Amino acid sequence: MGFGEIVLWEFLGTAALTLLGCGVVANTVLRSSLGAGGGWLLVNMGWGMAVFVGASIAAPTGAHLNPAVTIGLLTAGKLPAGDVPAYLIGELAGAFLGAVLCWVAYKLQFDDHDEPGNTLGIFATGPTVRNLPWNVATEVIGTFVLILWVLLSPGAKVGEEGVPNFGNSALGYAAVMFVVIGIGNSLGGPTGYAINPARDLGPRLAYAVLPIRGKGGADWGYSWVPVVGPLVGAVLAGLLFRVLPAA
Amino acid sequence: MGFGEIVLWEFLGTAALTLLGCGVVANTVLRSSLGAGGGWLLVNMGWGMAVFVGASIAAPTGAHLNPAVTIGLLTAGKLPAGDVPAYLIGELAGAFLGAVLCWVAYKLQFDDHDEPGNTLGIFATGPTVRNLPWNVATEVIGTFVLILWVLLSPGAKVGEEGVPNFGNSALGYAAVMFVVIGIGNSLGGPTGYAINPARDLGPRLAYAVLPIRGKGGADWGYSWVPVVGPLVGAVLAGLLFRVLPAA
Amino acid sequence: MGFGEIVLWEFLGTAALTLLGCGVVANTVLRSSLGAGGGWLLVNMGWGMAVFVGASIAAPTGAHLNPAVTIGLLTAGKLPAGDVPAYLIGELAGAFLGAVLCWVAYKLQFDDHDEPGNTLGIFATGPTVRNLPWNVATEVIGTFVLILWVLLSPGAKVGEEGVPNFGNSALGYAAVMFVVIGIGNSLGGPTGYAINPARDLGPRLAYAVLPIRGKGGADWGYSWVPVVGPLVGAVLAGLLFRVLPAA
Amino acid sequence: MGFGEIVLWEFLGTAALTLLGCGVVANTVLRSSLGAGGGWLLVNMGWGMAVFVGASIAAPTGAHLNPAVTIGLLTAGKLPAGDVPAYLIGELAGAFLGAVLCWVAYKLQFDDHDEPGNTLGIFATGPTVRNLPWNVATEVIGTFVLILWVLLSPGAKVGEEGVPNFGNSALGYAAVMFVVIGIGNSLGGPTGYAINPARDLGPRLAYAVLPIRGKGGADWGYSWVPVVGPLVGAVLAGLLFRVLPAA
Repeated sequence: MGFGEIVLWEFLGTAALTLLGCGVVANTVLRSSLGAGGGWLLVNMGWGMAVFVGASIAAPTGAHLNPAVTIGLLTAGKLPAGDVPAYLIGELAGAFLGAVLCWVAYKLQFDDHDEPGNTLGIFATGPTVRNLPWNVATEVIGTFVLILWVLLSPGAKVGEEGVPNFGNSALGYAAVMFVVIGIGNSLGGPTGYAINPARDLGPRLAYAVLPIRGKGGADWGYSWVPVVGPLVGAVLAGLLFRVLPAA
Repeated sequence: MGFGEIVLWEFLGTAALTLLGCGVVANTVLRSSLGAGGGWLLVNMGWGMAVFVGASIAAPTGAHLNPAVTIGLLTAGKLPAGDVPAYLIGELAGAFLGAVLCWVAYKLQFDDHDEPGNTLGIFATGPTVRNLPWNVATEVIGTFVLILWVLLSPGAKVGEEGVPNFGNSALGYAAVMFVVIGIGNSLGGPTGYAINPARDLGPRLAYAVLPIRGKGGADWGYSWVPVVGPLVGAVLAGLLFRVLPAA
Repeated sequence: MGFGEIVLWEFLGTAALTLLGCGVVANTVLRSSLGAGGGWLLVNMGWGMAVFVGASIAAPTGAHLNPAVTIGLLTAGKLPAGDVPAYLIGELAGAFLGAVLCWVAYKLQFDDHDEPGNTLGIFATGPTVRNLPWNVATEVIGTFVLILWVLLSPGAKVGEEGVPNFGNSALGYAAVMFVVIGIGNSLGGPTGYAINPARDLGPRLAYAVLPIRGKGGADWGYSWVPVVGPLVGAVLAGLLFRVLPAA
Repeated sequence: MGFGEIVLWEFLGTAALTLLGCGVVANTVLRSSLGAGGGWLLVNMGWGMAVFVGASIAAPTGAHLNPAVTIGLLTAGKLPAGDVPAYLIGELAGAFLGAVLCWVAYKLQFDDHDEPGNTLGIFATGPTVRNLPWNVATEVIGTFVLILWVLLSPGAKVGEEGVPNFGNSALGYAAVMFVVIGIGNSLGGPTGYAINPARDLGPRLAYAVLPIRGKGGADWGYSWVPVVGPLVGAVLAGLLFRVLPAA
């Protein structure tokens, strides 16, 4: 598949991912939303279904939607290095657009919110206890589980260009939906589970530039954690995959 | 398939959709229901499973259940224009009947409710912050995601008459159930996610004519928003589909 | 399949159904349970997954687990009349056993409960507003949806003996799990959705005879409602199925 | 498959199981977690999805992840006795490692917790009402349901070495995910549903040896209950399977 098409499908799929993903957080956080106070399970199901929708849309390219998936596949020897830039560009640009659309969908609720300085969490992740090395460790562990599952899952079909395509298996992308909900339920408590550099960086940039009423800072000091942690976890999973016996 | 059969299956399926969909809201809103105060995730799972049941019943016609699906498929070039009236008639009439049956099922709880003037939300959608252009935007975005997914999802099989039939794929209509729950979780906060003109208009009409004890007004001033917004979103998704490269 | 085998599989499957179904209510109602106060969605997911487990076990006989399914299939012309008694015997006996096992599993929590007179709801259904004709109507509507779905769902495969076997379709019994959760979410609010005479009668009898500490009455005056309502709903769905055109 | 490979896959899969399973409890219990106070359904969905992830990873060996599955299959005549030690070693060692990783992921939250002496429940199960014979009975019943389902489910494919492989069926390991969530919802209330000796023993040992700030005792006096109960339940299910007619 050509450079432009990879960018296109990953752009569309990742835009759907962060539109729906940031959307569910907006819904639970903003006081004038019907889902206000909806709780952690609602947030996780929202992100999981955001992956389901985005992955269905980006099926032609294997639906990475996540630089950690791209780098994990590269490390595992399942993706040509030349395809990596197209994936990363599509993922980051799409993640930015989705966050902008989330803001449009919730514009009135942002304007009506009573703690407008406290809305970064709708867009980007952050730790409940700030300690960057341990925060990195949490993101490494969560992403390692995700990428190892992607590489080993019996539902994963590796296509001609080294692209996993769950869309061809029986559960389809519902499998990765369950995994993402599960990681959120279980490992999202300390840092909000970025487990995806684009999902964090794109919306954080959107938060920084959008005219959100009364917004606070974008916490750039933390922003490297949800990039480095997931990438390290992905590389570790890819390396483990290389030394495992064939199933 | 003939005019009458299209009307019949869409009528039955959409009746199941609004019976169960309005039912879950009644269950959470009416104080004498076992699900009273059940929360946003319960509402969304109820609507998602309502789509699952209704779509299974209406499988012979591709289970549109929604004028936005019908118009989206038409725009995308996947439905003969001559079939459109039959779909719309079945959808609207079924949506009305389902709402009537919901009232029958919850008759005692309506009679026992302590805020009877506040029951429109069981039948029709409404905004938490009233600003019609922005409310339209939210409905456009939510429906755009739904219709784009319908058109692109690897689970969608387009039948002979241009009818998508998820019932033939592995996940079946569970796929669209997950998508609807996801849109509700993520984009339903501002307006209650009609994303379907029939789902809003049919029950709103039922509310207006049923002898519900102590009922309030049907808010016809808002009623065009959940019609126009979803149709615009559907047309935009159909147009985008036309310019995308083949997957 | 012979009389004894039908009784056996339906007995095992329905025992699993009421063990898990009554179990989830016990878990949310009894104050010393970890799920105490767990809410309506937990209850509905519990009953839905109880159907999933019970149906998987009773797959050899098509997993009716419910006299309304048996009578609905008979009405639709999909079950030999001679098989009906075996199904009903297995369903009722299994439903009784499952309720007994639920009591064993929660014995300590029953002994520790602070409102022991209020435990009938763990075993049998009851209305939030008592008005038997309307209560019947609610059960008719809920069961009609269930049986119409069973008869029409594209996932249903009708076997040689007129037995639907979802176990052979892609979603398997997960499809009926979603439907049961959906009916509970949406139509369970007024009466607790028996939608199954055996599910109500068997555990009600168990409640009447078990030595549950401080128990109250079994409310036999209501007990005909969750028998008659579901059977009427099933017959109506079977009759509608007969007049529908072939899909 | 050789001894070492069985150990390896069961080790990886069971590590994922207890990492995610203990993780969801940590998330709901520890006050500085985003999921704090998340409730019983969140916990059960977490454990169910932990099984889904772990089972996908351990698919090459049939994904027992649980000595009760291993012993149940042995009793049913579906596993060579010589394979049992490898399964048990992998399960126990993996369960220990997963608990350690859970502690790493939640290190800051453990340090920040206000009731550090009350954290055993994150790792090991315990009864709400202590009465060991009845606690055993609850574990027997829950595990009996699990193992009978594994043996009878139409989704189970028994491979060449007597290993069930849900990964080859349509629902894949999502089926066992639903069953585990269901057992948790319905039968987890009294004892926290170990239904798996390794899931309890491995993390309990990890709790005993890890330098968790302010930790309490590991309650070894109870620790035999979640070992003996599940094994008895598994043997009973295996024996019943032997006398059932072929489906």
